[in-house]
Amino acid sequence: MTHLIGLDWGSTHLRAYRYDGLGRVLEKRALPFGIRQLPDGGFQAAFAQAVDQWPEVPVLACGMVGSRNGWLEVPYLDTPTSVERLAHALTTMATPDGRTLHLVPGLRDPSRPDVMRGEETQVVGVVTQSPDVARHGCLLLPGTHSKWVSLREGSVAGFATVMTGELFGLLKEHSILGAQLPPAVDDDEAFLRGVDMARDSGAAGAFSRVFSARTLMLDGTLPATAVPDYLSGLLIGDELRMAMAAGWVDANTHVLMVGEGPLCDRYLKAAKRFALDIHAAPDATTSHGLWRIAQAAALVSTQATA
Amino acid sequence: MTHLIGLDWGSTHLRAYRYDGLGRVLEKRALPFGIRQLPDGGFQAAFAQAVDQWPEVPVLACGMVGSRNGWLEVPYLDTPTSVERLAHALTTMATPDGRTLHLVPGLRDPSRPDVMRGEETQVVGVVTQSPDVARHGCLLLPGTHSKWVSLREGSVAGFATVMTGELFGLLKEHSILGAQLPPAVDDDEAFLRGVDMARDSGAAGAFSRVFSARTLMLDGTLPATAVPDYLSGLLIGDELRMAMAAGWVDANTHVLMVGEGPLCDRYLKAAKRFALDIHAAPDATTSHGLWRIAQAAALVSTQATA
Repeated sequence: MTHLIGLDWGSTHLRAYRYDGLGRVLEKRALPFGIRQLPDGGFQAAFAQAVDQWPEVPVLACGMVGSRNGWLEVPYLDTPTSVERLAHALTTMATPDGRTLHLVPGLRDPSRPDVMRGEETQVVGVVTQSPDVARHGCLLLPGTHSKWVSLREGSVAGFATVMTGELFGLLKEHSILGAQLPPAVDDDEAFLRGVDMARDSGAAGAFSRVFSARTLMLDGTLPATAVPDYLSGLLIGDELRMAMAAGWVDANTHVLMVGEGPLCDRYLKAAKRFALDIHAAPDATTSHGLWRIAQAAALVSTQATA
Repeated sequence: MTHLIGLDWGSTHLRAYRYDGLGRVLEKRALPFGIRQLPDGGFQAAFAQAVDQWPEVPVLACGMVGSRNGWLEVPYLDTPTSVERLAHALTTMATPDGRTLHLVPGLRDPSRPDVMRGEETQVVGVVTQSPDVARHGCLLLPGTHSKWVSLREGSVAGFATVMTGELFGLLKEHSILGAQLPPAVDDDEAFLRGVDMARDSGAAGAFSRVFSARTLMLDGTLPATAVPDYLSGLLIGDELRMAMAAGWVDANTHVLMVGEGPLCDRYLKAAKRFALDIHAAPDATTSHGLWRIAQAAALVSTQATA
């Protein structure tokens, strides 16, 4: 029996989930229809393909589909925000093929200001499974734009975006630091050297030392093939340094990291050099978050839970 | 009477100076033959044009012409470095047309490590005209790669490079912060807002807040046309914040800024928000530095000086 369809619809991906009445994912689809990849007016066709042949149950979507360039703009919801506040702020639309689509709002931290769209659903997915961290902890979502999310009493208290991934790409692809390098070779030592350089940069920060990616190489003490790993360590290390300097975390904060793969491994390695307590969060956070929001919004029975 | 020819030969420019016996520039040429603009083997032709019809006097050149991609690689000289040490480390070559060319070495600060090539001659030009700053002060050379040079007892004690200009270009041209912006409008208020944001970012630094260039615009409190000026303020402000946090300068340091034009005006405006004492250095620092190095190297009479 299908009780809910969930869509994780971002800039570069569209994932569809079909749930049973206990919130278990019965079927999963991945489609190459991120909102940036769609032609004008392509939302309906992509949507139809994502839910094709699936029963006429409520559809709940999160991500950039609700942005200004998405299917329907959904206003941001200001922090602090609980799952319940989020669930009561859904925007509902009828799709051309007669289905009902509910859109999860993104979050806005008015104190910075800062915004997220899509990550709020991952946060819900983690928070509802990790009560300790939800009471008083921090989530780290590494990526092109990393997010640091402060949790207090089960609510999102605030958050901050650091552009680490994008800055790394810019420096590697377009700056003098990445120019004329031979093909990169994995170099763990160079990565950790970058992390330590950032950690030890103090209040000046790693951007006061970023030119070292070039001078160490010219000096002959950093292999040219290791410059990208050194730079990666420097920037990830600086993100951790910033997070501590800004007070987003300290050595006593429980930090759960959402994500997996090589990038997250880098953050775990770097965190050890800072004596930060970072652990990997449970998997499948977005699909679980969609289910939890649907429950809180009474789109599905609130009794049943996997 | 011509006593010396000086060449300021960088990546993107070639300037030639003809001096009298008192170090006054009698004639100046600017040629579009930066070393990056030259075809293979183009050095001799560019050189010949730069000194064309000028007498057969010693030629002294500084800048990227002495780099690995230059005409002849000249090793860096380690700091601390006085004018005298620099003058004794010239590399001399005979040009194919029978002239004698002396090349000024770049400097290397082994403690970071960091390097400069060309700026050392500007530093000499300022130092020999500003004894107070030379005794105990700091030079700031704003640019794509800004340099902060510490002076003690007339010598270069050390220096640091900050990639402010390059980072600004990358963020404006290639990042999400600069994407889809309307044509920029000069906005002094936005610039100073960025400076203050950096100043108040504390030990976390402005890169923990750089995403604000987007969120403030989305929020409607920063005009899209002012994003570049805001970003410029944020990065220049962060450079000043770093310089103070790293101890390169403090509120009591005499800082002379080498350069002129709109970029330097931005640094002067930003410095006021930090209560930093930055003043513009005398003009024509490179041509004066070349003359002073030639004197110290006894390429010209040491008696005569303008």
